[in-house]
Amino acid sequence: MQIATPVLPSTEAVSPLSIHESTIDGGFWATMQKLNADRILPHIITWERRMGWVDNFRLSAEHHIEQRRGAVFTDSDVYKMLEAIAWELGRQPNDALQREFDDIVQWIAKAQREDGYLETSFGDTGQPARYSDLEWGHELYCCGHLLQAATARIRIGHPDCALVGVARRFADRIVEDFAPGRIERIGGHPEIETAMLEFGRATGNDAYIQAATRFINRRGHHTLADSHFGREYFQDDIPIRQATRLRGHAVRALYLTAGAIDCAVENHDDELLGIVRRQYQDTLEKRTYLTGGMGSRHSDEAFGDDYELPPDRAYCETCAGVGSIMVAWRLLLATGDLSYGNIIERTLYNVIAASPSTDGTSFFYVNPLQQRNRTHEAAPDQCSLRAQASTRAPWFEVACCPSNVSRTLGQLSAYVAVNNGNGLSLIQFMPGTIRTTLHDGGTLALRIETQYPDDGIVTITVLDAPQTAWTFSTRIPDWAGTMTVTVNGRSRTDQGAQASLTGVMPAGTTIRLEMPVAPRITYPDMHIDAVRGCAAVERGPIVYCMESIDQKLSQDLNRYRIDPQSTLTDDGRYILATGSLLNDGPTDDPTDGSADDGRLPYHDAEQHIGGQPCTLRLVPYHDWANRGPSTMRVWIPLGE
Amino acid sequence: MQIATPVLPSTEAVSPLSIHESTIDGGFWATMQKLNADRILPHIITWERRMGWVDNFRLSAEHHIEQRRGAVFTDSDVYKMLEAIAWELGRQPNDALQREFDDIVQWIAKAQREDGYLETSFGDTGQPARYSDLEWGHELYCCGHLLQAATARIRIGHPDCALVGVARRFADRIVEDFAPGRIERIGGHPEIETAMLEFGRATGNDAYIQAATRFINRRGHHTLADSHFGREYFQDDIPIRQATRLRGHAVRALYLTAGAIDCAVENHDDELLGIVRRQYQDTLEKRTYLTGGMGSRHSDEAFGDDYELPPDRAYCETCAGVGSIMVAWRLLLATGDLSYGNIIERTLYNVIAASPSTDGTSFFYVNPLQQRNRTHEAAPDQCSLRAQASTRAPWFEVACCPSNVSRTLGQLSAYVAVNNGNGLSLIQFMPGTIRTTLHDGGTLALRIETQYPDDGIVTITVLDAPQTAWTFSTRIPDWAGTMTVTVNGRSRTDQGAQASLTGVMPAGTTIRLEMPVAPRITYPDMHIDAVRGCAAVERGPIVYCMESIDQKLSQDLNRYRIDPQSTLTDDGRYILATGSLLNDGPTDDPTDGSADDGRLPYHDAEQHIGGQPCTLRLVPYHDWANRGPSTMRVWIPLGE
Repeated sequence: MQIATPVLPSTEAVSPLSIHESTIDGGFWATMQKLNADRILPHIITWERRMGWVDNFRLSAEHHIEQRRGAVFTDSDVYKMLEAIAWELGRQPNDALQREFDDIVQWIAKAQREDGYLETSFGDTGQPARYSDLEWGHELYCCGHLLQAATARIRIGHPDCALVGVARRFADRIVEDFAPGRIERIGGHPEIETAMLEFGRATGNDAYIQAATRFINRRGHHTLADSHFGREYFQDDIPIRQATRLRGHAVRALYLTAGAIDCAVENHDDELLGIVRRQYQDTLEKRTYLTGGMGSRHSDEAFGDDYELPPDRAYCETCAGVGSIMVAWRLLLATGDLSYGNIIERTLYNVIAASPSTDGTSFFYVNPLQQRNRTHEAAPDQCSLRAQASTRAPWFEVACCPSNVSRTLGQLSAYVAVNNGNGLSLIQFMPGTIRTTLHDGGTLALRIETQYPDDGIVTITVLDAPQTAWTFSTRIPDWAGTMTVTVNGRSRTDQGAQASLTGVMPAGTTIRLEMPVAPRITYPDMHIDAVRGCAAVERGPIVYCMESIDQKLSQDLNRYRIDPQSTLTDDGRYILATGSLLNDGPTDDPTDGSADDGRLPYHDAEQHIGGQPCTLRLVPYHDWANRGPSTMRVWIPLGE
Repeated sequence: MQIATPVLPSTEAVSPLSIHESTIDGGFWATMQKLNADRILPHIITWERRMGWVDNFRLSAEHHIEQRRGAVFTDSDVYKMLEAIAWELGRQPNDALQREFDDIVQWIAKAQREDGYLETSFGDTGQPARYSDLEWGHELYCCGHLLQAATARIRIGHPDCALVGVARRFADRIVEDFAPGRIERIGGHPEIETAMLEFGRATGNDAYIQAATRFINRRGHHTLADSHFGREYFQDDIPIRQATRLRGHAVRALYLTAGAIDCAVENHDDELLGIVRRQYQDTLEKRTYLTGGMGSRHSDEAFGDDYELPPDRAYCETCAGVGSIMVAWRLLLATGDLSYGNIIERTLYNVIAASPSTDGTSFFYVNPLQQRNRTHEAAPDQCSLRAQASTRAPWFEVACCPSNVSRTLGQLSAYVAVNNGNGLSLIQFMPGTIRTTLHDGGTLALRIETQYPDDGIVTITVLDAPQTAWTFSTRIPDWAGTMTVTVNGRSRTDQGAQASLTGVMPAGTTIRLEMPVAPRITYPDMHIDAVRGCAAVERGPIVYCMESIDQKLSQDLNRYRIDPQSTLTDDGRYILATGSLLNDGPTDDPTDGSADDGRLPYHDAEQHIGGQPCTLRLVPYHDWANRGPSTMRVWIPLGE
């Protein structure tokens, strides 16, 4: 049975809930979902129309491809926007979004060729031939996003949607064209793997699942031409089963990993699942930023080396955050290990939430942990390349990120909890209601109230439950390490990755969770050269940062030191830390008349610059750059 | 009068010597010059022929441009190779090199069009039109390197060389085509500016000097289309007189700066000279690596922000080192400030000398200060892109660096000293002989003997001198800060940037310089986030590094700490420092069975890992990676 959830394996350790079974109706993420519906999605639609990416389908239908606009992969942006609309329509009716959706789909349907092929960049007279540039052409990638949009339509209850028919015909075309004995190759940007497999799950068509499996198995055999960035860039260097780590282009690597998990699950391939699980663990241990961000390098948008985690040049593409959530969620479903919820939570609060501005009309494509310069804001009508500006931009020529954030927000309530067969396992802490059917047919309904993460208390009221014993489990966040669980007045404190209770807990039962969300200081591993001698401030799952405009004594963030013994207090607006402001030294400003003797910035003794005690003001990282250009740092040098 | 020296201003504070007046005949750099003649130059010629770049001129002459091979700018590589050959032929006769030179020049001459235009990538039937891609087409850049090769031929005494005639005709074409009222634009990669101006000096043609000045003045007015990297990338964002810093693509910025200095000097434009001088000082203070390397970013080969100096992702393109020497040398001549010799020395020993392997058959294109992984060596017949491999490569598709090193080595003895009018100013310390004519017509000849930088003693014997008082000056290296000068047994110790003696110092006089070259520990400025809590070891002008293969207890460089109180000893092969080896923690090797729990690399307390005292072995940075793949670091974390 199809339910409104993004990943629906045929077998799993725990079962996902639909966005109808689990809803969010308050707090941080309800606000984000509302922002998505009211501002982000309309903004995306406006820009994709303005850029001509929607109209490309009309031009393709009418064979006016010489007027086509945008990069080769813009079809995928339209599909991803449709997927985001689909999830939002699944969440609640919206006539305006429905009209947009229907209008766009009609043109996509008209652009589809007789034989099912559908691309505005390839295959028409005067265009490159179909599949003539599998390395960079993104045809399979675009098809994948079409299939994900169609899957969303099926899952929210519209299997008869025109887009589903279009997707089925294009999928059939791809399956046939890339069958054994035909084009035994792959696409340069993974996406078809996870998308076609999920479309197979959604349609019950095993041919799609087998095609996805073939795409996974073919990768790493050099069926793509080498690239300037090396074959590692698109994970075609070695087969996935031989790899020990995620590598190359981060979004490509994470999308591929998601597909590999899907294939492993559907094919009962525990060996592959174990391999990919270890690859992701290795990535978490050595190639992940404090924010959950992944991908260090600008030049090839790649992971970089182990422990190469520079804060200022962190790429941390927003889409890599989405990809990491995709991977972690699939591993959680496949293994039942609730601790995958830790990286999901960290990435949601510190990457996904950081991307859109508070008004939902501009976005970060890259998410660095340090900003050295005040840069200009992009004008409201200005389209950026992608990672050039260090402030949010209203739109990008490469615009994968906004719609990826949007579809994630639309699906979000599906990630709150899972059905553990005999009850529910809570993964994220958001106000809302969960109502589902247990494996024995019983109904379980919970009401969740919380101010989390502002405080650490989550109150769960059982609205409906079986008469017999059932199991309530909850993730214990890694940053907490401990949780006090109180049921009907009886408390116990659990440590580790999860807490679990089994018993008869009828309607009216109250389960109270308590976690220590006091601000805390975090230190980097000694292997991370780039932030040696620094510390960061966190509160619950939220990473904080110093933004220049909040500091009273000096706007020069280079002059601040944080006291490792600092008491940290939350004044409602800032976390306040104690530290020092170093005396005025040379600054970054060349017009300030500072010493100008041409000496290199190296000395024969350690610098000791006196300072004065001061208070450091920190704000949540996801809130930075919402008040005009400023400088920012997450990692603050240690001092008194 | 033309003499064999790369830069010959019509007015200057101090006068350059020719490579015939100043020779190097022993020590480190004589070995490098011999390597250049015997191995590097033949290697470059072999590869430029193998890649088809030489043959492109024949194909162009015969209008078979459909067979043309290589990137759009390979003509420049051939010209730069010819320039390197010219300087080497100026240094000493070499029949083999002369034959190569003559053979290549004949084809270049045949490829030149009737009207003087000369390009294998543009202007023929089936090719893009002339000047149709000034942003990326590199026509003016290629022309510039042709002019520099021709200037070298004039300067070493061959003004009648066919290449000079070819260059003159192409220069005239460019002057006319880019005259006021015609194409009032510039080229995307500066080079024509400094080259055409120097060609004007070499030919005495003021039209070239004025054309160069126009190219300088036009830049910054957006006559180039914007690029993905922004207009800053090719310094077209703002006029050079409005800029306060070097920015964008490092090689482009430095070549432009060299041209701006040339123009300022020839046009007696002290305002421009002052502006550019401050820009370079700012770059030295905030955007220069300990090695003298410049340019931090891989993505656009750019400077990056102030104090953005990551050791592992340091780009430090070899050509940027050459460009920095070009700028510093011009400023030294224009101002008489010998302290510009400091950055020249540092760059020579730690960038230029680092690029070629000890056998002269492979090269670094980028020069990072940390290498995290053992990477594969490129095979002897393998052409790399440019910066992909972290080991030296025999050749590159973008091959600007090898010939840039080669031409610099061929010119090198011209950088040893300058004529200060009433004597000589010594800038670099290399065994050799200097013989020149003072402004009053007197002859001055010095013999220099030294083991520098192995020791700090330089012995100068006056071979020939005026009967009257003359002035001997010498740079006091910045790393020394002090120098003891002994003349005929009488010593004095000077501090500051230079020492100067004026007196009657007849033939037979001995001047002895003594500098403290004991190994020392160097600390980074507090603004450099990327190497906080680390120190480096230097000895004289030479930066040292730890290479994994030299360490006895562990190959994992992450485990070593250097004692800031360490005594440093030189055992003839290594500098030995005391420090500690941390106990075995998690390593970079994913196959080592280390903890695999998926925890992020962040902790709630500072890590304190015990260790044992040990000896750190350091080698000169320029020697690293000559004994197979290894890991390396210049900056070593401080510990006991």
